[in-house]
Amino acid sequence: MSATSQIWIDGVSAESLPLPDRGLEFGDGLFETLLSMHGQVPLLESHFERLKQGLHRLGFPDCAERARQCLQAALPALSNSAFTAIRLTVTRGSGPRGYVPPDPCEPRIIISSTDVARNAAVPLPQLSVVPAPLALANQPALAGIKHLNRLEQVLAARHARAEGADDALMLNERGEPVCMASSNLFAVVAGTILTPPLATAGIAGTRRRALIERWAPDLGLAVEERFFSLGTLNVASEVFCSNSLVGLRPVGQFGSRTWSSHPVMAALFERYRAELPA
Amino acid sequence: MSATSQIWIDGVSAESLPLPDRGLEFGDGLFETLLSMHGQVPLLESHFERLKQGLHRLGFPDCAERARQCLQAALPALSNSAFTAIRLTVTRGSGPRGYVPPDPCEPRIIISSTDVARNAAVPLPQLSVVPAPLALANQPALAGIKHLNRLEQVLAARHARAEGADDALMLNERGEPVCMASSNLFAVVAGTILTPPLATAGIAGTRRRALIERWAPDLGLAVEERFFSLGTLNVASEVFCSNSLVGLRPVGQFGSRTWSSHPVMAALFERYRAELPA
Repeated sequence: MSATSQIWIDGVSAESLPLPDRGLEFGDGLFETLLSMHGQVPLLESHFERLKQGLHRLGFPDCAERARQCLQAALPALSNSAFTAIRLTVTRGSGPRGYVPPDPCEPRIIISSTDVARNAAVPLPQLSVVPAPLALANQPALAGIKHLNRLEQVLAARHARAEGADDALMLNERGEPVCMASSNLFAVVAGTILTPPLATAGIAGTRRRALIERWAPDLGLAVEERFFSLGTLNVASEVFCSNSLVGLRPVGQFGSRTWSSHPVMAALFERYRAELPA
Repeated sequence: MSATSQIWIDGVSAESLPLPDRGLEFGDGLFETLLSMHGQVPLLESHFERLKQGLHRLGFPDCAERARQCLQAALPALSNSAFTAIRLTVTRGSGPRGYVPPDPCEPRIIISSTDVARNAAVPLPQLSVVPAPLALANQPALAGIKHLNRLEQVLAARHARAEGADDALMLNERGEPVCMASSNLFAVVAGTILTPPLATAGIAGTRRRALIERWAPDLGLAVEERFFSLGTLNVASEVFCSNSLVGLRPVGQFGSRTWSSHPVMAALFERYRAELPA
C-alpha cells in the first residue's frame, strides 16, 4: 500500500479484510470507481443509482445509504488531494461455506483511495487500442451493473498491455463492439454519436449516461444507442471512450486505422469539465 | 469464524486478507474445494492439475507447487477431524489500481477449512432441483476452470434456496443442461451415462473426471460427454450429480419428474468410496 492510499471497512480505517468474505470467494459484490476532486465527487448520484440497481439485481439488502455514509465519512481525509480515485466496494459479507447467500446477510463496505498524479480536468492523450483476445459473454442477468466478476476485463487489459496498447476493444459474440476493457465506447458516424447498448454485456458508465442524457443534447449532438459493426469504426470520423477517472478520452489508433482530430469529443469534454467541482 | 474454521495465507495462520487484493477487486483468481479425511485429500493430483490449467489460462505464474506446500503445511492441523472441507484460493495478489495485472505478480495463497458435520463416505439423500433463473453464459476463455467469478452460480443457488430446493439446474443459452449450481450433472439414458461438455461453460469437476476416466469404465458402464435436451432428463432412468464434498449424489426430483431408484449411481458410489482414504 503506497503512502497515498487509504482503506476503510464499514467506516473504520483498516488494512485488511476480515475473512471469510463472499466478495473474495465468489466475486459476490459490486463496486464503483469515483473521482474525488478535493473531496468532492462528480456525478455522485449517478454512481449511487447504479449501485442501487446492482444491489437489487444481486438480491442484496439495500445498503446504499450506509455505503453513502461510509463514503461521506471518508471524503474529508481526501480534501487535501487535488485528484483521487476512490473505489467503493460492497460485498455480501461473511457467510457459511458454499454458493447460497446467507439470509439475512450483512454487506461489507470497503472504501479505498489512491491519489491520481495528473490533472483529471485536462484530456488525456489519444489511446491506442487493440482487439481483445476474447469476446464478452452474453449475460443479461449481470449486464450493465458494476459487479465484481471482472476476469473478462482483466484478460483483455492484460493482452492490451502485452501488445503495447493502452486498452482493448471488446466485441460481443456476434462480433459487434461493446466497450473497451476499462471504458465505454463512442463512434461518430455521419455526425451522429453511436454507442453500443449494454443490456447483454458491459457496464453502464456514469459518464456515458451523462453524455447521452445531458452533454450531447446540450450541444445539439445526436446520440444513438445501437450496435454497429467493426467495419463502422473504420468509417467513423472519430472514436472516443469514457470512464469516471478520465471523463472522455480520444482513441488515436485501432489496428491500421488512425484518428488525429476529435472535435466532437473536444466539445463534449468542455461540457463535462463545466460540471466538475470548481 | 466458527471454532472449527481455520485460515492460512501464504502459509501463515491468519484471520484477514491484506488489501488491496485482486481476488476481491475483480475475482482475479482461482479456487479448489477439497475434501480432507483425517488430513488426507482424495484426488489431490486431479485438483492440482485443474489448478495448474487455471493458472495457465489466466496468465498467472505457475505457483501450483507453492500452493501445494501451503496445503501440505495446513493438513496436519486437520488430522483430528474426520471430514473437513478445505478451500484453496489463489489470487493474483496486490497490484496498482485498474484491470491490468502487475507484471511480475506475486499470487496470494489462501487456505481455509471448515468441519463437515457428516460422514462424507456415505451417500447424501436425494436432491430436489429447480431450473436456474438465468442461463450460463457462453465463455470459452473461462469455461472448465474454477475461477473466482461465480455470480451465475450464486444467483442460481440463491433462487434454489428461495424455492425450497437443494440446487438449481443450469442451462446454456441453447437451453441444454450444463450442470447444477454446485455440481456436475449426469443422466442415465438407455444404459449410457450422459454428461454435458464443459468447453463453453461450467467447471470440469475432479469427481466427474474420475467417473469418466476410471469409475464408469471399471464397472463396464458407457459414458458419453455430449449435450442433451431438457426433455432427455424426463426419459432418463436416473439423474445424479457430483462434487468433491458429496462424491456422487442422486437427484430425486426436477419439476414434476421424480426418481426413486439410482442403481447406476449406487454402483459408482461404491467404486468412489473404494478410493477414499481408509
